[in-house]
Amino acid sequence: MYKLASLQTQSKTVVSVGSVRFGDGGFAMIAGPCAVESQDQIGATAAAVARAGAAMLRGGTYKPRTSPYAFQGLGDTGVMLIAAAGEQTGLPCVTEVLREHQLALTSKYVDMLQIGARNMQNFGLLEAAAKTGKPILLKRSASATLDELLYAAEYILLKGNENVVLCERGIRGFDPETRNVFDLGGALRLKELTHLPVIADPSHATGRSSLVEPLVLAAAAAGLDGAIVEVHPNPAQARCDAAQALDLEAFGRLMNRLAPLKASLQIPA
Amino acid sequence: MYKLASLQTQSKTVVSVGSVRFGDGGFAMIAGPCAVESQDQIGATAAAVARAGAAMLRGGTYKPRTSPYAFQGLGDTGVMLIAAAGEQTGLPCVTEVLREHQLALTSKYVDMLQIGARNMQNFGLLEAAAKTGKPILLKRSASATLDELLYAAEYILLKGNENVVLCERGIRGFDPETRNVFDLGGALRLKELTHLPVIADPSHATGRSSLVEPLVLAAAAAGLDGAIVEVHPNPAQARCDAAQALDLEAFGRLMNRLAPLKASLQIPA
Amino acid sequence: MYKLASLQTQSKTVVSVGSVRFGDGGFAMIAGPCAVESQDQIGATAAAVARAGAAMLRGGTYKPRTSPYAFQGLGDTGVMLIAAAGEQTGLPCVTEVLREHQLALTSKYVDMLQIGARNMQNFGLLEAAAKTGKPILLKRSASATLDELLYAAEYILLKGNENVVLCERGIRGFDPETRNVFDLGGALRLKELTHLPVIADPSHATGRSSLVEPLVLAAAAAGLDGAIVEVHPNPAQARCDAAQALDLEAFGRLMNRLAPLKASLQIPA
Amino acid sequence: MYKLASLQTQSKTVVSVGSVRFGDGGFAMIAGPCAVESQDQIGATAAAVARAGAAMLRGGTYKPRTSPYAFQGLGDTGVMLIAAAGEQTGLPCVTEVLREHQLALTSKYVDMLQIGARNMQNFGLLEAAAKTGKPILLKRSASATLDELLYAAEYILLKGNENVVLCERGIRGFDPETRNVFDLGGALRLKELTHLPVIADPSHATGRSSLVEPLVLAAAAAGLDGAIVEVHPNPAQARCDAAQALDLEAFGRLMNRLAPLKASLQIPA
Repeated sequence: MYKLASLQTQSKTVVSVGSVRFGDGGFAMIAGPCAVESQDQIGATAAAVARAGAAMLRGGTYKPRTSPYAFQGLGDTGVMLIAAAGEQTGLPCVTEVLREHQLALTSKYVDMLQIGARNMQNFGLLEAAAKTGKPILLKRSASATLDELLYAAEYILLKGNENVVLCERGIRGFDPETRNVFDLGGALRLKELTHLPVIADPSHATGRSSLVEPLVLAAAAAGLDGAIVEVHPNPAQARCDAAQALDLEAFGRLMNRLAPLKASLQIPA
Repeated sequence: MYKLASLQTQSKTVVSVGSVRFGDGGFAMIAGPCAVESQDQIGATAAAVARAGAAMLRGGTYKPRTSPYAFQGLGDTGVMLIAAAGEQTGLPCVTEVLREHQLALTSKYVDMLQIGARNMQNFGLLEAAAKTGKPILLKRSASATLDELLYAAEYILLKGNENVVLCERGIRGFDPETRNVFDLGGALRLKELTHLPVIADPSHATGRSSLVEPLVLAAAAAGLDGAIVEVHPNPAQARCDAAQALDLEAFGRLMNRLAPLKASLQIPA
Repeated sequence: MYKLASLQTQSKTVVSVGSVRFGDGGFAMIAGPCAVESQDQIGATAAAVARAGAAMLRGGTYKPRTSPYAFQGLGDTGVMLIAAAGEQTGLPCVTEVLREHQLALTSKYVDMLQIGARNMQNFGLLEAAAKTGKPILLKRSASATLDELLYAAEYILLKGNENVVLCERGIRGFDPETRNVFDLGGALRLKELTHLPVIADPSHATGRSSLVEPLVLAAAAAGLDGAIVEVHPNPAQARCDAAQALDLEAFGRLMNRLAPLKASLQIPA
Repeated sequence: MYKLASLQTQSKTVVSVGSVRFGDGGFAMIAGPCAVESQDQIGATAAAVARAGAAMLRGGTYKPRTSPYAFQGLGDTGVMLIAAAGEQTGLPCVTEVLREHQLALTSKYVDMLQIGARNMQNFGLLEAAAKTGKPILLKRSASATLDELLYAAEYILLKGNENVVLCERGIRGFDPETRNVFDLGGALRLKELTHLPVIADPSHATGRSSLVEPLVLAAAAAGLDGAIVEVHPNPAQARCDAAQALDLEAFGRLMNRLAPLKASLQIPA
């Protein structure tokens, strides 16, 4: 059985990323494009989501793409662009890492490292990322049980890095109407099993931008610790995941609906 | 393709059950035991959930049990008991029907007929229930796509009965940590496809009473039209589904948390 | 726990349908159209599959269709047509029943009653069918565990009818490349749990006629007790399930490939 | 869409590993322990499976374990032990690689590199393994569609390495009776989509040694290109996957049953 990840081992962990805190009873919003595409794109997105109240900036630059013919991301250049956008807006930023050799640059310039669903059981990467000491956003694989996710977290914790935030991003389902099945019940059950913070990724979970706002509200109402959503200045032009990205205006509306809900549930702003 | 069930056919349907309305922008709560066990049990539950603000009373009396050795319900007697409890509290009530010959008694004494997940494609039962003219609560089968659920609704609508409320009660998943996977994303997508109201059943979806409150709050925040939850005066003694029933106090707490959330989202009380 | 269905209760059951035996170490083939469409169609199919070595004839006449707009079958007329075709060829025949009132006619004219996947937990139908005393072909629902299937069988066995043949016809999966997932491992595990015969339905399991022959050979090689496959004189014109039906010639080829395989494994002809 | 992996691009590929050929119409058996544990263990297994007619030897040494507390394999030492056992018996051998830095040693000493289910979309590893020029055994992830598997193969093919054998090893299912669901229908459909050979891994697919023999027979009868099975001299003492390993005698029996079946289907010995 996993030990360090278990709620029986210790009380709730609060993970700090810059001034942002996950697991302190608040609901932190991470927003940004699927992929960093250009300085303008990431800069405009960062400015807009910061204005709307996002706590952190996301953006992929090493992209794990099902097809080798799909846009693979800007690589190292993207790291510098998201770091600059974070700097300018004051938002801590998170990007996904796929290979160990990417850790040197990313851990120097970004504030949190994401291990994506496809790499949840890439144990070498987990351990190497752990050793950077940076906070880690660990996504649940589409076919992982909660146990398997917590064992993956255990690989990180065992290396002495306790700054792990877990993320439910959809499990494999049988209905093509949504890209995956957003397992909110599983995410809540996870919080009964572990002291680590748990956030939601409704963008990847559903693949439909129209479902992002209601699912973020649901995640907040249910007591998760935050959400990560895809936002793009012009979703129709996005180089990946166009169907699930919110535009800047829609993100603003979402934040405006979220605020009174948080207040009603006494979730700190 | 389904036609009558499609949102392209008509604007949002409001289903009335007594004075309760599903689909008018509110969030209606149906509560009660898995099974009607006795006059005392259903009476005490009805009184408590009415006091706490439930809109309707639920209780099974013809029970579809996986095992033939499990409690099969009180049958016709149970119908009279739930009807009496509804009468005394002023709550409209809903019970599940399994066979066509049960329709005469149930449609006379209860206010809404439930077609359960196992019978979602029992087309003869759908049509016979439709012809009673009573409002119907149609649950999604654990392996049904949204299309299949809407086609099942179409069988009812084609018989001229437009009072159909759909219910997401969990789809089959691979993780034993929860009994099923509560597909909130699917329920929301459903509301983009159909004009019929959609409610949530987090009790059956998760099989864990501790997850019911947060998922009801989530369903309300996300914009579903209501929820149906299992409540029992003494869950430890319940003759079925003990692990997922709220006790009366827990149901009261849930309603107390739901009220300010609804207010914050401007959902009518 | 189920008792009567358990292998711990009794040794292997042999179910006889006319002169056909399921569970005696042989591999019995049931073949015929998805739906009985006309006297010519069922007659021509019956003659061809009998010639090719089929043991039984199948054909649906009360059709459980996802859509109310799809062909619903010939009903009572179809029963008489398949019975006549069986009579002429000497093949016992099986057809699906959906509602209790269909049992009088079907149990008089056909040799085996099928309870389909959608009705696996339609317990009233199970019990009523059991009481006819006819052999029953019980299909596993697309989301049923083996336990749930065996409990469904238990409902039949408890009524004193021991002539139950179980059928794996595909479980719900996530890949649209096949209609369902043919769970051969589950079917084999089933034979470790129960004394009842188990057959395969690769037509419904995959929805692709090109996969039927190899999966029948696989089922025979693995030690299942038979298979049920869809055969139509002109699949392109079939009124349902056209994509998964074999034409008469393809069925003949299948039987020709099956014979030496059975011989090599010492399965009785 | 994938291109190089598509059957529309080229005719069937035959992958040679030493003198073993996958995809030439034969059925090649790979056998050996889950993990290389000692010189004695791998040596005894290799000798026995060679005698019984296996074509290749398998054995894990870098083990991807769900739990960090489970046996992680012998690492580099294991590579030398399996290579020596292969050398002594004349069996080409295959072992799994998890990280890029393991490629230098493994590609020097073993004949085929396995990319396991957890790393199917570890694209960096796929590309690095491809560049060694060694034949690659690519396993389908438990939640991968056939398209996703073929796209993963495409990453390898694009690096100029055409020696890819695909392997179905079970997809995630809902029934705990088997560890995974052996998707034989999917494996057969795969052969309609790609020119690459496809083999079966019934050990991981079911997690039950009693189901391995019938599923190997099924895979051969259905026309797959081979199978990979776990064999251990003393399964009860195995350091991993004890429940699914065949002992040496059971493997001999399997090969004895396979031979006449292959003969009957005219599969070359």
